[in-house]
Amino acid sequence: MMRLLILNGPNLNLLGQRETDVYGTASLDEIVAQVKETVQPFGYEVEDFQSNHEGELIDRLHVSKGKVEGIIFNPAAYTHTSIAIRDAISAIETPVIEVHLSNVHKREAFRHQSLIAPVCEGQIVGLGIQGYRLAALALVEKAKSEGRNNHV
Amino acid sequence: MMRLLILNGPNLNLLGQRETDVYGTASLDEIVAQVKETVQPFGYEVEDFQSNHEGELIDRLHVSKGKVEGIIFNPAAYTHTSIAIRDAISAIETPVIEVHLSNVHKREAFRHQSLIAPVCEGQIVGLGIQGYRLAALALVEKAKSEGRNNHV
Amino acid sequence: MMRLLILNGPNLNLLGQRETDVYGTASLDEIVAQVKETVQPFGYEVEDFQSNHEGELIDRLHVSKGKVEGIIFNPAAYTHTSIAIRDAISAIETPVIEVHLSNVHKREAFRHQSLIAPVCEGQIVGLGIQGYRLAALALVEKAKSEGRNNHV
Amino acid sequence: MMRLLILNGPNLNLLGQRETDVYGTASLDEIVAQVKETVQPFGYEVEDFQSNHEGELIDRLHVSKGKVEGIIFNPAAYTHTSIAIRDAISAIETPVIEVHLSNVHKREAFRHQSLIAPVCEGQIVGLGIQGYRLAALALVEKAKSEGRNNHV
Amino acid sequence: MMRLLILNGPNLNLLGQRETDVYGTASLDEIVAQVKETVQPFGYEVEDFQSNHEGELIDRLHVSKGKVEGIIFNPAAYTHTSIAIRDAISAIETPVIEVHLSNVHKREAFRHQSLIAPVCEGQIVGLGIQGYRLAALALVEKAKSEGRNNHV
Amino acid sequence: MMRLLILNGPNLNLLGQRETDVYGTASLDEIVAQVKETVQPFGYEVEDFQSNHEGELIDRLHVSKGKVEGIIFNPAAYTHTSIAIRDAISAIETPVIEVHLSNVHKREAFRHQSLIAPVCEGQIVGLGIQGYRLAALALVEKAKSEGRNNHV
Amino acid sequence: MMRLLILNGPNLNLLGQRETDVYGTASLDEIVAQVKETVQPFGYEVEDFQSNHEGELIDRLHVSKGKVEGIIFNPAAYTHTSIAIRDAISAIETPVIEVHLSNVHKREAFRHQSLIAPVCEGQIVGLGIQGYRLAALALVEKAKSEGRNNHV
Amino acid sequence: MMRLLILNGPNLNLLGQRETDVYGTASLDEIVAQVKETVQPFGYEVEDFQSNHEGELIDRLHVSKGKVEGIIFNPAAYTHTSIAIRDAISAIETPVIEVHLSNVHKREAFRHQSLIAPVCEGQIVGLGIQGYRLAALALVEKAKSEGRNNHV
Amino acid sequence: MMRLLILNGPNLNLLGQRETDVYGTASLDEIVAQVKETVQPFGYEVEDFQSNHEGELIDRLHVSKGKVEGIIFNPAAYTHTSIAIRDAISAIETPVIEVHLSNVHKREAFRHQSLIAPVCEGQIVGLGIQGYRLAALALVEKAKSEGRNNHV
Amino acid sequence: MMRLLILNGPNLNLLGQRETDVYGTASLDEIVAQVKETVQPFGYEVEDFQSNHEGELIDRLHVSKGKVEGIIFNPAAYTHTSIAIRDAISAIETPVIEVHLSNVHKREAFRHQSLIAPVCEGQIVGLGIQGYRLAALALVEKAKSEGRNNHV
Amino acid sequence: MMRLLILNGPNLNLLGQRETDVYGTASLDEIVAQVKETVQPFGYEVEDFQSNHEGELIDRLHVSKGKVEGIIFNPAAYTHTSIAIRDAISAIETPVIEVHLSNVHKREAFRHQSLIAPVCEGQIVGLGIQGYRLAALALVEKAKSEGRNNHV
Amino acid sequence: MMRLLILNGPNLNLLGQRETDVYGTASLDEIVAQVKETVQPFGYEVEDFQSNHEGELIDRLHVSKGKVEGIIFNPAAYTHTSIAIRDAISAIETPVIEVHLSNVHKREAFRHQSLIAPVCEGQIVGLGIQGYRLAALALVEKAKSEGRNNHV
Repeated sequence: MMRLLILNGPNLNLLGQRETDVYGTASLDEIVAQVKETVQPFGYEVEDFQSNHEGELIDRLHVSKGKVEGIIFNPAAYTHTSIAIRDAISAIETPVIEVHLSNVHKREAFRHQSLIAPVCEGQIVGLGIQGYRLAALALVEKAKSEGRNNHV
Repeated sequence: MMRLLILNGPNLNLLGQRETDVYGTASLDEIVAQVKETVQPFGYEVEDFQSNHEGELIDRLHVSKGKVEGIIFNPAAYTHTSIAIRDAISAIETPVIEVHLSNVHKREAFRHQSLIAPVCEGQIVGLGIQGYRLAALALVEKAKSEGRNNHV
Repeated sequence: MMRLLILNGPNLNLLGQRETDVYGTASLDEIVAQVKETVQPFGYEVEDFQSNHEGELIDRLHVSKGKVEGIIFNPAAYTHTSIAIRDAISAIETPVIEVHLSNVHKREAFRHQSLIAPVCEGQIVGLGIQGYRLAALALVEKAKSEGRNNHV
Repeated sequence: MMRLLILNGPNLNLLGQRETDVYGTASLDEIVAQVKETVQPFGYEVEDFQSNHEGELIDRLHVSKGKVEGIIFNPAAYTHTSIAIRDAISAIETPVIEVHLSNVHKREAFRHQSLIAPVCEGQIVGLGIQGYRLAALALVEKAKSEGRNNHV
Repeated sequence: MMRLLILNGPNLNLLGQRETDVYGTASLDEIVAQVKETVQPFGYEVEDFQSNHEGELIDRLHVSKGKVEGIIFNPAAYTHTSIAIRDAISAIETPVIEVHLSNVHKREAFRHQSLIAPVCEGQIVGLGIQGYRLAALALVEKAKSEGRNNHV
Repeated sequence: MMRLLILNGPNLNLLGQRETDVYGTASLDEIVAQVKETVQPFGYEVEDFQSNHEGELIDRLHVSKGKVEGIIFNPAAYTHTSIAIRDAISAIETPVIEVHLSNVHKREAFRHQSLIAPVCEGQIVGLGIQGYRLAALALVEKAKSEGRNNHV
Repeated sequence: MMRLLILNGPNLNLLGQRETDVYGTASLDEIVAQVKETVQPFGYEVEDFQSNHEGELIDRLHVSKGKVEGIIFNPAAYTHTSIAIRDAISAIETPVIEVHLSNVHKREAFRHQSLIAPVCEGQIVGLGIQGYRLAALALVEKAKSEGRNNHV
Repeated sequence: MMRLLILNGPNLNLLGQRETDVYGTASLDEIVAQVKETVQPFGYEVEDFQSNHEGELIDRLHVSKGKVEGIIFNPAAYTHTSIAIRDAISAIETPVIEVHLSNVHKREAFRHQSLIAPVCEGQIVGLGIQGYRLAALALVEKAKSEGRNNHV
Repeated sequence: MMRLLILNGPNLNLLGQRETDVYGTASLDEIVAQVKETVQPFGYEVEDFQSNHEGELIDRLHVSKGKVEGIIFNPAAYTHTSIAIRDAISAIETPVIEVHLSNVHKREAFRHQSLIAPVCEGQIVGLGIQGYRLAALALVEKAKSEGRNNHV
Repeated sequence: MMRLLILNGPNLNLLGQRETDVYGTASLDEIVAQVKETVQPFGYEVEDFQSNHEGELIDRLHVSKGKVEGIIFNPAAYTHTSIAIRDAISAIETPVIEVHLSNVHKREAFRHQSLIAPVCEGQIVGLGIQGYRLAALALVEKAKSEGRNNHV
Repeated sequence: MMRLLILNGPNLNLLGQRETDVYGTASLDEIVAQVKETVQPFGYEVEDFQSNHEGELIDRLHVSKGKVEGIIFNPAAYTHTSIAIRDAISAIETPVIEVHLSNVHKREAFRHQSLIAPVCEGQIVGLGIQGYRLAALALVEKAKSEGRNNHV
Repeated sequence: MMRLLILNGPNLNLLGQRETDVYGTASLDEIVAQVKETVQPFGYEVEDFQSNHEGELIDRLHVSKGKVEGIIFNPAAYTHTSIAIRDAISAIETPVIEVHLSNVHKREAFRHQSLIAPVCEGQIVGLGIQGYRLAALALVEKAKSEGRNNHV
C-alpha cells in the first residue's frame, strides 16, 4: 500500500470555525476525507497530522522519511518564519508540495514570501480545499512516473 | 460547449527545445493536448495562444472576457515586470490561474515576486506540465461550483 | 490648424466597462469628444490613439514629433514600468502632460512612482475625465505663450 | 456666493523674487488675481492664505471646514514631511487639490513623495500658475456636479 | 463569574531573578496576585499561563476562546517573530491587550516592531507590573461597556 | 496640590467631530473631565493644552518642567515626524506617557514608528479615552512610589 | 556697520540647563556674547534669534535677506526633518554656516543626516561653543574676500 | 558565408536626430555600414534589425538561433526592465554582446543595472559607435577561436 | 566534578544521515563522545541535549543555570530566527559558545546573520566536529582562568 | 611616440595560475604582449604596471597625467570599493577605459557595481584578454579623432 | 614647543592643479603655510604628511600618538571607505578634527557618510582652506583648556 | 618541518596598548609565542606578519601559497571592507581561518559582516588570544587529516 501524509501547521485545527471568509467553512477532517477519496482509486492511504508546534511538525517530517510517497504540507504561519522546517524538508528525501488555502499574495506583504517553497517540489496557492486534492494527485503521479507506485 | 483558454507568455514557444533541464522536454503543443484530454470528459473545449508580446497577451485577455470559463496563464517573464497584464486581468471578470513549469522560488530572486498573482484565483508553481492540467481541473470545478457548467 | 494628440496606454480601451468605481463610466470616445469640444474654440483639432502595446505607443510618439502642439498622455500601467516610453518622450520635442483618471497615490505603492513624469511638462492626477480637458487647456495655453498658435 | 480657498505653504510668500528659474516670476498676488478672474464667471469668491508655519496651515484648514467649496493647496516643503497636515485634510470634508508650480519629479528624490496626495481629490504638478487656475476650474466643476453650486 | 487570562511568553518564568535592571524584581506570581487584587472587586477571576513554547501559547489561546472575557498577553520575544501567534489571536474572538514590562522602544531595533499588536485591542509598554494591572482594568471596562459583565 | 498635564497634538481639537469611526465620539473636554475625575481622589489637579503647532507643544513642555508630576501626551501626527518634540521631552525631567486613542499598529505603516516613545516612560495605544485615564493612574502611582505625592 | 545673525533652533533656549553632558554648561547668552567679542574687532554687530517654531525660523531667515552678511545657524532637531527650512535658505542669498554643539555623528543614526547642509556654505560639528565662534570668523572672512566688508 | 546580427532596441531608430549630446550624430545606418566594413575582411555579412517592441526583439532573437555567429545587441531602455529578453537570450545558444553608446554609469541610477548582461558574453559601454565595431570584432574572433569560421 | 552541556538545535538529530556533503558523516553521538574525550583529562563531565523544539531548548537553558560551567550550543536554524533563545541566554549567567558545523557564510544570505552571537562568549564556524571540541577547550580554559575549576 | 598604460589591480599578478576557469590561462605578460602587438602598427608604445596596493595604483595614475594617451585599467577588486581611485581618475585628464576579464555581472552581487565606471570613458566586460586589446584600439582611435596622434 | 599634525589623504597632493572649481587653487604647501602662520603666535609648530596609501596614513597616526597636541585630518576618499583609519584614530588618544575643503553634502550621496567622524572631536566641512585654519585654532584652544599648552 | 602563518591586519601592532577593555592586554608577540608553544609539539614552526597596508597583506598571502600548511588570519578592519583580500585568499590554495579577538557581533553593525569569511575554512570570534591557539590546532588537525603532516 502507498501512503501520503497531509501535514498542517498552526491554527489549521480551527479550520471551518475561524475567519471563514478567508479560509472557507470546511473542517480539517473534511479536507482529509476529500483527499482520501481522491487518492484511494490509485491505491493510496492517507495519514494526517496537525500541530501548532514548530518542533512537532519537524519531528513528524523526520519520521515520515521513507514512510510516505509524498507530503501535502500547509505550513500556515510557519511558511514565512521557519528556517527549521525548511531544513527538515531538505533533510528528508520525500517530495513535499506546499499548499495554501487562501491566495497569500492578496494578503499582508509578510505572507508573500515563503521560506519553505525553495525546498519543495512545488506550491499550490489560493485554490481552497481543492489545492490539497490537486497536490495529492500531483504526488501520486510523480511517484508513478518515478516507478514508485507498486511498493508493497 | 464550455471553453478554457491556455495563455502562454514570452519564450514559451521554444518549450521543449530550450533549457530542458529547467523547463522539461514537452512542447507547448503537447501541453495543450494533455489539457484537452483532461477537460474533454467535462465537456470543455480548449483554446490556446502564445505570444512574446506583452500587448498581444493583453489584447487576448480582453477578447476572452465572457468567452471562456477560465484562463490557465503562464505569464513567464512578464510575471515579474508587467503591471499592464495585471490590470488586464483585473479588468475582465474571468477566473485566471497562474502557472509556472519550474519552481521559480528555487531560481533568481527576481523570479520570486509575482505582480500577477494578487489578481488571480490562485497559483500553481513547479509541477511541470501537470501544473497546467491541475489548473484546468480547478477551473472546471470552480465553474461547476458556481453553476456555470451548463452554458450551452 | 493646430493639433493635439490624446495618447492612451494599456487597458484604457475598456474604459467605462471595467472597474467603474475606480475609473468612472465614461468611455474613451466620450473623453476624446469632451477634449475636442474643449479645444475647438481655440482652433485645435484632436487626434487620439490607444494601444496595449508599449512598442506602438513609442512608435506613435515618434511620428508625432513636429506634427502636434502637445500630447495628453495617460500611460496607465506603463507609467510605472516603461523606461522605453520615457526615452521616447525625451527624444521628441513635443510637450507632454501625463494624466491619470484615478488618484494613483491612494492605490498600491507601485502606482506611486512615475518613470514618465520627470520628462513631461507636468502631471494631472485623480481628476477623472476633467484631467484630460485641463491638460488640453494647459497645452493650448503653453503653445500660445510660446507663439506657436498661428501655425497653419 | 460660493467660495474657494487658495492655501500656500512655506516660502511661497517669496514667489517671484526667489529662484525664478524654478518657480517663475509671478508673485502670489498675481496668482490669486488670476484665479479670481478664472472663477468669478462661475459666481465664486476667492480667499487666500499663506504661512510658513505648519500649525497655521492646519488651523486654517480646520476653520475652512464647511466654509468653502474647495481648497487649492500648494503645501510646498510640507508636502513631503507633514503627516499633521495630511490628518487635517482627512479631518475636514472639503475637497482639496494639491498643486505644485514646478515639476517636482524633475527635482531631488525627497520631493517625489507626497504625504498629502493620498488624502486629496487629485494633484496638478509642473504647470506653473496655470496649475492653480486649472485646480480652481476642477473644484468649481466638482461642486457643480455634486449640486453644491447654488449655496447662497 | 467573569474571567481574565494572563498569558506570558518565553523567559518570563525567570522574572524577578533575571536582568532585574531591565525587568524589575517582582516574580510572575506577584504580578498575578496584583492583577487578581485589582479585578476581584469587579467580580473577576484570573487564570494565568506561562510557556516558553510558541505552540503551547497558541494552544492556550485556542482553548481560551469563549472562556474568558479578555487576555492580558506579554508575548515577550515572540512579539517580534511569531506570525503563528498573531494568527491565533485573529482566530479567536477574545479581546487581547499586549503588555511589555520594559519600554521596548528604548532597546534593540528588532524589539520596536510587534507582529502581534495589529490584531490586539491595544498595547501597554514600559509601565512595569502596573502595565498588567492597567490592561486588566481596560479589559474589565471593555467587557462592561459591551454588556458582557453579568455572564454568570 | 499635585498636578498632571494632558498635552494633545495636532487635529485633536476636532475630536468627536472628525473620523469618529477611528477616534470615537468623545470631545477633548470630555477626556479632560474623565481624567480629572480619575485623579482627583489622589489629590491631583489637571491642566490641559492642545495645539496644532509643533513649536507651541515644545514651549509648553519647557514651561512644565518642575511644575507638574507627569504628562499624558498624545502627540498625534508629530509622533512620527518630530525629533524636536523628542528632544524637548529629553530636556525636561518630567515623566511622560505617550497615549494614542486608536491602535496605530492597525493603520498606515508610517504610523507604526514613534520618535517619541524612546524618551517616554511608556506608551498606551489603542484603548481610546481609557488610555488617558490609565496613563494618569500610572503617573500618580509613579509619583507616589518615588515619594513625590506630598508636594504641597 | 556689518552684521551677523546667530539663529538657534528648538530646545536651544534650554542650553546650559539641559543634558549638560551632551551640550555643555554655557547658556545661549554666553554663546552670543562670545561671538560678539570675536567679531567686534572686525567691525561686526551680532543679532540673535531662537525659536522652537519651524515657521518662526523660516520667517526670520526671510527677513534677514540682504540685512546681514552671514548667518550662524544651529537648526537643532530641525536639521534632520525640515525641508521647509532648507528651502528658506535656498531662497535667500545670504551665506549660512550650519553649526552643531555636539558631534552628531556619535549619536543616534537619525542625527547623521542633515537636510540643511547641502544648501549651506559649510558645516561645523562637535566643537561646542567654539563652533559658533569659528563659523563667525569664517563668515567675516568670506564677506571680506568678496569685498563685502565696507558696506557703510 | 558567416553572419552577424546587429539588434537595436527602442528609440534607436531616432539615432542621430535625438539628444545628439548623449548619443552622437551618427544614424543607425551609418553604424551598420561601419560594422559591415569592419567585418567584411573576415568574410562576414551583417544583418540588422531595430524595433521599439519588446516582443519583436524577442521574436528576432528566436529566429536568429543557429542562423548567425553572434549578436551585437543594444537593448536600450529594455536593458533595465526586460526579463523576457533576458530569457530569450538564455534560450538561444548564439553569443550576444551587449553594447551601449553612452556611458550608462554616468546617467540616472536606474540605468546602472542590466538585466541582460548576466546572460551575455560581455558588455561594451560608453564607446559610441566604436563599441559596435569592437563587439563585432570580438564575436568574429570568438567564432574563429571556436572553429566556427569556416561554416560553408 | 565540573560539567559542560552540549546543546543541539533542530534537525541535528539527523546528523550523519542527512546532507553529508554539507554536515559531514559523524553522528551526534560521535560528536558527544569526542567532546567527552577532549575534556575528561580536565576533570569534566559532559551532558548533551538535542531538540527540534525552540521551547525545549529554552527550558534546557533555564535549568542549566548554575549547573554547568559552560554550554556548547549549535542552535542550527534557530540561530537566525529565535529572539526567545537569545533572551534565554541573556537570562542565565552561564557562558555559551555558538558552534556551526558548516561555514554558514558560504551559504544562503539568511544564514549569515546570528541573533544568538551577540549574547554568547564567542562563535566557532565551519570547523566541523572539531568546532565542538575547540569550544569545549575554550570553556574549560575560561572556567579555569576565572577560578571556577575546583567547584565541588 | 605615443604611449598607452595598462594598469592592473590586486591579484592580477597571479593571472594564469589562479582560478583559471574564471580568469583564463594567459599571464599578465601575455596580455601586455598582445596589446603591444595590437597598437604597434599605430605607432604606440605600451607601459604596464600592476599592484596589489590601492595607493600605488593612485600614485601611478598621478604620474601618468599628460604622459600617456590613454589608460587600460582593470581595477579588479578595487572596482567595487575604492573611491580614492575614482577620485584619482577624475583628477588626471587622461582617458581611462575600465576592463574586466570575466563577466562580473554573472558573479556575486557586490561585483555588479563599479565605483570607477562613472569617471571612465567606458567599460569592457567579460571579453577576456580581447577586452584589453579592444580597449587599446578604442583609446588609439579616440586619440586620433581628437588630433592627439602626432604628439612626438 | 607644542605641535600639530596636518594629515592629508589620497589625491590631495594634486591640490591646486586638479578640479579647481571643486577644491580651489591653493596647493597643499600653501595650506600648510597658512596653518603655520595661524598657530605660531600660540607657540605651535606644524608637521604635515600626505599619502595616497591607507596604510601609510594609519602608520602616521600611530607614530603621532603622544607626539602632537592634535591632528587636522582630511581623509579625502578614505572618509567614506576606511574602517581601518577609524580604528587607528580610536587607538591613539590624540584629538583629531576631520576637515573637508568642499561641502561634501552637495556632492554624490556616497560622500555624505563619514566612517571617521564618529571617532573625531568634530568636523569642519565646506570652508575651503579656512577649514584647516579653524581646525588648528580649535585644537590649540582645546589643548589650552585642558592645560596642555605649556608642555615645554 | 611544517609551517603556519599568523597574519594580522591593521592596528593590531598596537595590541596590548590600545583599548584594552575591548582587545585585552596581551601584545602581538605574546600571542605569537602562545601559538608557537601550542603547535611545537606537532612539529610546526610559526611565522607571523602584521601590516596596516591592505596591499602588503595581499602580497604576503600570495607568497605564502604552497609555503605554509595554513594561515591564522585576523584581518581586523579589512574584514568588512576588502574584496581584494578576499580575492587573494581565493587565489591561493592554503586553508585560512579567520580570527577575531573581540566578539564583533556585540559591536557596531558594520562589524557584523565579513567579506572574508565566505572564502575561509571557518571563523573563530570572541575568544581572545585563545582563538588564535584554537585556530592553530584546527589547521594542524586539518593538515593531518589530509595527510599533509609529514611534508619535509
